Amino acid sequence: MMDEICAGLENIRTLHPLVHNITNYVVMNFTANVLLALGASPVMAHAAEEVEEMVGLANALVINIGTLSRSWIDSMGIAATAARKRCIPIVLDPVGAGATRFRTETAKRFLREAPPTVLRGNASEILALAGAKGTTKGVDSLAGSRDARQAAIELAKSNAMVVAVTGAEDFVTDGSRAATVTNGHVLMSRVTGTGCAASAVTGAFCGVQRDGFVAATGALVAFGIAGEIAAGAQPGPGTFQIKLLDALDAVDPAAIRDRARVELS
Amino acid sequence: MMDEICAGLENIRTLHPLVHNITNYVVMNFTANVLLALGASPVMAHAAEEVEEMVGLANALVINIGTLSRSWIDSMGIAATAARKRCIPIVLDPVGAGATRFRTETAKRFLREAPPTVLRGNASEILALAGAKGTTKGVDSLAGSRDARQAAIELAKSNAMVVAVTGAEDFVTDGSRAATVTNGHVLMSRVTGTGCAASAVTGAFCGVQRDGFVAATGALVAFGIAGEIAAGAQPGPGTFQIKLLDALDAVDPAAIRDRARVELS
Amino acid sequence: MMDEICAGLENIRTLHPLVHNITNYVVMNFTANVLLALGASPVMAHAAEEVEEMVGLANALVINIGTLSRSWIDSMGIAATAARKRCIPIVLDPVGAGATRFRTETAKRFLREAPPTVLRGNASEILALAGAKGTTKGVDSLAGSRDARQAAIELAKSNAMVVAVTGAEDFVTDGSRAATVTNGHVLMSRVTGTGCAASAVTGAFCGVQRDGFVAATGALVAFGIAGEIAAGAQPGPGTFQIKLLDALDAVDPAAIRDRARVELS
Repeated sequence: MMDEICAGLENIRTLHPLVHNITNYVVMNFTANVLLALGASPVMAHAAEEVEEMVGLANALVINIGTLSRSWIDSMGIAATAARKRCIPIVLDPVGAGATRFRTETAKRFLREAPPTVLRGNASEILALAGAKGTTKGVDSLAGSRDARQAAIELAKSNAMVVAVTGAEDFVTDGSRAATVTNGHVLMSRVTGTGCAASAVTGAFCGVQRDGFVAATGALVAFGIAGEIAAGAQPGPGTFQIKLLDALDAVDPAAIRDRARVELS
Repeated sequence: MMDEICAGLENIRTLHPLVHNITNYVVMNFTANVLLALGASPVMAHAAEEVEEMVGLANALVINIGTLSRSWIDSMGIAATAARKRCIPIVLDPVGAGATRFRTETAKRFLREAPPTVLRGNASEILALAGAKGTTKGVDSLAGSRDARQAAIELAKSNAMVVAVTGAEDFVTDGSRAATVTNGHVLMSRVTGTGCAASAVTGAFCGVQRDGFVAATGALVAFGIAGEIAAGAQPGPGTFQIKLLDALDAVDPAAIRDRARVELS
Repeated sequence: MMDEICAGLENIRTLHPLVHNITNYVVMNFTANVLLALGASPVMAHAAEEVEEMVGLANALVINIGTLSRSWIDSMGIAATAARKRCIPIVLDPVGAGATRFRTETAKRFLREAPPTVLRGNASEILALAGAKGTTKGVDSLAGSRDARQAAIELAKSNAMVVAVTGAEDFVTDGSRAATVTNGHVLMSRVTGTGCAASAVTGAFCGVQRDGFVAATGALVAFGIAGEIAAGAQPGPGTFQIKLLDALDAVDPAAIRDRARVELS
C-alpha cells in the first residue's frame, strides 16, 4: 500500500492532473490553493453551458454541495453524467447532508443517478446518507467516524463505490477492503474547508490512480501528514491554514513512509 | 459590563453557537475562519429551499448584502422571517448601503420587514440608512463613526434594535444605552472583510447572549483586541490577516479585562 | 518609463482608486486583498440592478470570466457598456478562453461589443482569442508568452486596445509600442489567482493613469517585483501568498527603480 500511495503522490507531481471542481463558495480559493500546492491543476467551472466540455478535459471531477442552489445542482448533474460516460473519476462531498432535507436529498440523488468513485464525508453526513438522523450540527459532525463504519460499508456495497469517512480517525472502504488512517491533527477542524480540501486531494489522487480505494486512502494519508507537518510548531488556526499549504507542497514519499499510520482490514 | 463580555466569550468557547451566514462571496472563507478561530460554528447556506430549515438549527443569523442579487435577497428574506418567528437573533450588515440604490433599498427593506437584533455598519452605511447622502466610496466609508452617532441612535429607536457603527472608534447603541469602543487597529482597514467579520463575531455573541447591546459591544471589544494582538509585531496586511485568526483563537477573558477600552454613556 | 510607473504607484497610494471587480468566486477575496494591500479601494458588485450605478463611482472596471454564468455575463455587459460611455478604463481577464467554447465566445463577444482598455491573459488565452487552438489546460497555459507575441500585437491593433500576456516573461503591447517585463517569480504560478490579481492591479494603475500601455506595464512591473520580494525567503506556496500581500504594501518607487526589468521595443 505504501508503494502505491507514494506512486500516486509522485504521479500528481509529474502529471499535474486537472481536477474540475464544482464546489462551494466558501472553500473555492482554499481548494484551488490546496490542489496547486500538492502539484495538481485545479479548475472551477459551474455553468451548464460549459461543464460537459470542461469535465472532458479533466482527470477527475469533484462535486461538493456546500453552498447549493438549484442551477448548480443541474450543472453538477450534467458534469457527473458526462464524467461517468467518459470514465472520469468522480468524488462527491455531501457537505451538510443530514442538516437540511435539500442537502440530504441532493446527495442521495447524485448517489442514485451518477454514483461517484469516492464519497468523502464526515460521520454525520455518511450516517445521514445511510438513513440515520440527527447527528449533524450545520456542517459539523456530532458523531465520530467509528459510528459511521457500518453505514460506510453498506453504502459502499450498495453503490459500488468507495466511501471515505473522515474525522479524528479516517475510515475508507470499498465494501470489501477497509483502511483506517490515523494521520492528521486536531487543528484541521479549526480551519474551514479542510474536509472539502480532503475531497479535492482525493480527486487529485483519483486522477492519477485507477483504484479508488487506494487513491482515497493515499489522499487521506498525504493530507493528514501535511496537517501534522503544518501543526509542528503549534501555530494558531490562521497560521496553520497557511502552513498546511506549505506542507502539501513539501510532503514527499519519504514523509509518507516515515509517518503514515494506516491499518488495513 | 466586563463580566458580561467575558461570559459571552467563554460561552462561545463552550457552546460553539451555530452561526448561519448568508453573506457575500468575497468574505465567506474569511468569515468562516473567523468564527471557527473564535470558537463558534459557522454554516453558509443561501438556497431558498433550505434557509428556513438551516436557520432553525442556528443560534444566530447573519445577513450581509455585500454581493447581492435578486435570488439571494429572496433567500435572505425567507431566512430573516424564519429567524424572527423563532426568536433567533439576526445581525444585518448593510455593506455598501449608500453606494447604490439597490443596496440602500434592500437594506431598508430588511429593516422594515424583518428588523435585526443588531445592525452593524460603517458610518456611511448607517448615515445612508438614516437618509443622509454622499458619504460612501464603494464599500468604504468617507465619514467617521462620530458623524453617525445621532443617526445610529435614531435608527435604533425607530427600529427597536441595536446599532453598531464601526470605524477607528466603534459606537454601539440601543437607543437608550450607548458604548464607545476604542479597541482595534488601523491594519484592520487594510484587510477585506474585517467589517463583515465584526458582524459575524457579533452574531456569535448574540448566539449565546440575550442582550443585543451587550453582545454587540462584547463582540467589538473582543474583535478589536484580537486586532491589536495581531498587529503587535507590525506585520504587513497579509500577515496581519492570518495573525488576526490566531489572535481570535488566543483572546481570553484576561486579555479582555486587561485591554478593553469601553466607555458607557 | 520608470518615472511614469513610479508616478502610477504613488497615485494609487494617494488617490486610492476605486476598482470595480466583476470577477470569479475563486479569487474574489484574494483580489480584494491585493488591491487593498497595494493602496487601491476594491468593490465587488455583480447584480444587473446595480452594476451601472457602481461602475459610475469607479475609477476602473475589471471583468474576469473565471467562473462564468449567463446572468453574470449579462451584468458584465451592462457594466462594460456603462464604463465605455463614461470613459472608465476596463481590464478584461479572459480566464480559460480556449478551454471551453463558452469562455472563448464570451471573451470574444466582450472584445467586440465593449473592447477593454487592457486585455490581460496568459499565452494560451491570448492565442485562443486570436484564433489558435489547443494550447490550454483548464485555466493554465501550455504555451509561453513568447508564443503569443504576434497574436497579442494583432489583437491589440484590431481592437485598439492594450494586450498584456503574462507568464515567466510578460509582454505588453498596444500594437505599436511593446514592453517585455521579466520581473516576477515562479512561486506566483503556485498560488491561485495571481493572474487575476495582475489584472486587478492593472485596473488600479489604469484608474490613475490614462495611458493603458504604461499602466499595464507598470502594473506588471510592480506586481512582479512584489512577487520577487515575497519569494525572498524561499517560502512555501501558502506563506508566499501572504507575503505577496505584505510585499504589495511595501513595494515603493525605490524598489521599482532598483528592480524593474523592462525592455521597450
